[in-house]
Amino acid sequence: MVSVCLENGKVLVRSQSRSRRPEGFALIRLLYGGICNTDIELQRGYYGFHGTPGHEFVGEVVESDDRRWVGQRVVGEINLACGKCEWCARGLGRHCPKRTVLGIVKQPGAFREFLTLPEKNLRRVPREIPSQEAVFVEPLAAACEMLDQVRIPHGAPVAVLGDGKLGLLASQVLQAHGAQVHQYGRHKEKLRIAEWSGVSTEIAKKLPVARYEFVVEATGSAEGLKQAVQMTQPRGTVVMKSTVHGLVSIDSAPVIVNEITLIGSRCGRFEPALRLLAQRKVRVDAMISEVLPLKSAAKAFRDAAKTGVLKVLLHD
Amino acid sequence: MVSVCLENGKVLVRSQSRSRRPEGFALIRLLYGGICNTDIELQRGYYGFHGTPGHEFVGEVVESDDRRWVGQRVVGEINLACGKCEWCARGLGRHCPKRTVLGIVKQPGAFREFLTLPEKNLRRVPREIPSQEAVFVEPLAAACEMLDQVRIPHGAPVAVLGDGKLGLLASQVLQAHGAQVHQYGRHKEKLRIAEWSGVSTEIAKKLPVARYEFVVEATGSAEGLKQAVQMTQPRGTVVMKSTVHGLVSIDSAPVIVNEITLIGSRCGRFEPALRLLAQRKVRVDAMISEVLPLKSAAKAFRDAAKTGVLKVLLHD
Repeated sequence: MVSVCLENGKVLVRSQSRSRRPEGFALIRLLYGGICNTDIELQRGYYGFHGTPGHEFVGEVVESDDRRWVGQRVVGEINLACGKCEWCARGLGRHCPKRTVLGIVKQPGAFREFLTLPEKNLRRVPREIPSQEAVFVEPLAAACEMLDQVRIPHGAPVAVLGDGKLGLLASQVLQAHGAQVHQYGRHKEKLRIAEWSGVSTEIAKKLPVARYEFVVEATGSAEGLKQAVQMTQPRGTVVMKSTVHGLVSIDSAPVIVNEITLIGSRCGRFEPALRLLAQRKVRVDAMISEVLPLKSAAKAFRDAAKTGVLKVLLHD
Repeated sequence: MVSVCLENGKVLVRSQSRSRRPEGFALIRLLYGGICNTDIELQRGYYGFHGTPGHEFVGEVVESDDRRWVGQRVVGEINLACGKCEWCARGLGRHCPKRTVLGIVKQPGAFREFLTLPEKNLRRVPREIPSQEAVFVEPLAAACEMLDQVRIPHGAPVAVLGDGKLGLLASQVLQAHGAQVHQYGRHKEKLRIAEWSGVSTEIAKKLPVARYEFVVEATGSAEGLKQAVQMTQPRGTVVMKSTVHGLVSIDSAPVIVNEITLIGSRCGRFEPALRLLAQRKVRVDAMISEVLPLKSAAKAFRDAAKTGVLKVLLHD
């Protein structure tokens, strides 16, 4: 089978024997995979990852212990938790200290014809969601995570900083939640994607000071956090969504003087994301920049890293 | 009257005419003032402050609109709020954007024989609290502020990083609140002050990783925040208590991956602090390193800046 591999900064396409399915795991035929910024960071060697990347996917179950999965179209929770520790007991397997992570930490990823994942990680994709859109369930779940962490009242003004993939998902999720979202970005054509949902947008030039109770930092840049803090009003909250490689500087004085809360936010539950897509409350089709076959993975990774490009999909 | 002034990095003692009392303000004779690290930063010119510093004090009311204050021993809320904005309406005058701050922002401070402060800022000191201890009400209120911001369950293990004045107050406040506090510091003799209350202590060498759900950062150093994040378990909270001048670097990856909350914490309500001191649940007498007259303010500031020194008090 065709499998994408990262090796010393290169994106290689290999022909490998079909993956074996361990007990409790399903064998899944890839329909579509999505390239995330994390994949590009893996390629650049930031996390010492070698092997098959890919954690955003939709596929069809080919084999499984529980036969009811066979033939189902599925997406999958990317954290493979131990199921036994206190974190797992609290329903927070996403923080299990023994976890591996699909295509990120010690677990071959989804960019191959056939992938494997524990059956308990699978979620059925409702028929209302086209396959290309189902690839967005994982990043959309990450955007929804904010709402599990921070109580944002209906009608509350919220600023989203950044108009990349995560910023566009975050602004739509918040707008669908009932917040009044204003998004700051750098690209008119990207911001337009969020506007359909009622999000107001602006090319970021001079950012306001101490205006918002809630600010979502999704710029992906080291400067973003400082800007987000500056925009937040006393006792307000900054949701930190950008993983930036290396150290980030903040001016701690305004954080302390204004008693601002900064909250790191990563992966989320899939259920709210599936619901939003099924109900068409979030629009992701306009975010697909390109769809390429697995064998063109090298070009796909190159394109995904270009400015102006949003989501690049891979298909079998 | 004798008045301390900061001018171009110097601590001067001046003889001035007695302060005038504006309407709504009380005239207060200073009993004791306490030198805080912020005062030393003001001296160093960090905030462009000139004039009389001092925001920790206890005094006796000499004149006031409401005669019932006269003769009372008082401490005072240091934020002079407008009383009209939405922050003031929410009872958060400490965040009033028009506020001045006693001895810090556009308001002459307490290090003078007679100071003035709005009557609404005054709090009567119960007789159980000796005057030298009452000086600690303001910093103790700042330590108590955490409990208004973060729900820390009874019996929860909490780490306090730092054994300076604020660290020692924070650890005692948390222990009195029912938490199980472990304090990391650099000075055995300082840590001993917190131990009486049941706080366990340790000279910080190798700090634990991802062990605590709650970590209070009170080191006063730029390194402290990074260490605090490292010690915090997934979904845990770091309370940021150290104002550090300039930029502070954090590694944003663990904050996001572990979904850690960082919360800035500044001034607090005086009531819990007065209660803790009156009930002798927090011990501050052992934190007084020296008591000097106002006219020796220059030496007092020098001594307060030395390592190993905790609180230096000034008296009339």
